[in-house]
Amino acid sequence: MNNGVLRFIGVVERVDGETSKIQVYSEFCEALKGLDMFSHIIILYWLHLRDNDTNRRTLRVVPRMHQGAPEVGVFACRSPSRPDPIGLSVAEVSKIDGCSIFVRELDAVEGTPIIDIKPYRPRADSIPQATTPEWALHGPKT
Amino acid sequence: MNNGVLRFIGVVERVDGETSKIQVYSEFCEALKGLDMFSHIIILYWLHLRDNDTNRRTLRVVPRMHQGAPEVGVFACRSPSRPDPIGLSVAEVSKIDGCSIFVRELDAVEGTPIIDIKPYRPRADSIPQATTPEWALHGPKT
Repeated sequence: MNNGVLRFIGVVERVDGETSKIQVYSEFCEALKGLDMFSHIIILYWLHLRDNDTNRRTLRVVPRMHQGAPEVGVFACRSPSRPDPIGLSVAEVSKIDGCSIFVRELDAVEGTPIIDIKPYRPRADSIPQATTPEWALHGPKT
Repeated sequence: MNNGVLRFIGVVERVDGETSKIQVYSEFCEALKGLDMFSHIIILYWLHLRDNDTNRRTLRVVPRMHQGAPEVGVFACRSPSRPDPIGLSVAEVSKIDGCSIFVRELDAVEGTPIIDIKPYRPRADSIPQATTPEWALHGPKT
């Protein structure tokens, strides 16, 4: 087996300034139980606009939003062009209302399919002392 | 379109105590350029042992490794049973040698397919003050 098949579990329904509304499809809604106890979540989404041969075959890029960045591999940056077009954002939860999740600072456009939601657990996920090259310290956060 | 197709870009080739060796397939190897400048990486992997109808239809679980945890939705915990069986670990890079990445504390068994590798960027990914319910403070980190 050399591939996996993803089902979309929701969609970025609306982006309104810094706030995004994620609509989880009704058939998956009960999987949200207890999520409101976490302040932050990890959202995995499908970069559908990059789901094509050209972008999925791109292995090196120059992260142009980051001044002074050299050419790097797509696994060494957060480029949306990559073999598997999965985006990842850590986002603060503003509100959960039924099957709708309102989050701040989700870096995904309206219509983006959601593939997974995980609670953010600082014991495992927060590494403040992690080091990066100089170019990654400026420009967009990712 | 309601689904996405993933290509596996590597595999967890060996687990030796706390250290795991990820072998990136040769056709994707050049996408690693520059990754050695980051101390930590985010690894997305395919929970292949849970890629079946029963586990993918599981929407609620009791996280038994976490004493006192209530029944929660799979999007509110890090259960390997979930609609899209994607695992996520933040891991410290020990060494990168050609197409092999040696990391510490990757929570995946030998033979696990790798689907994406992203550099860990503390400005976006580290939220030390994120809050969780009490049950998530004990037991395994995830």
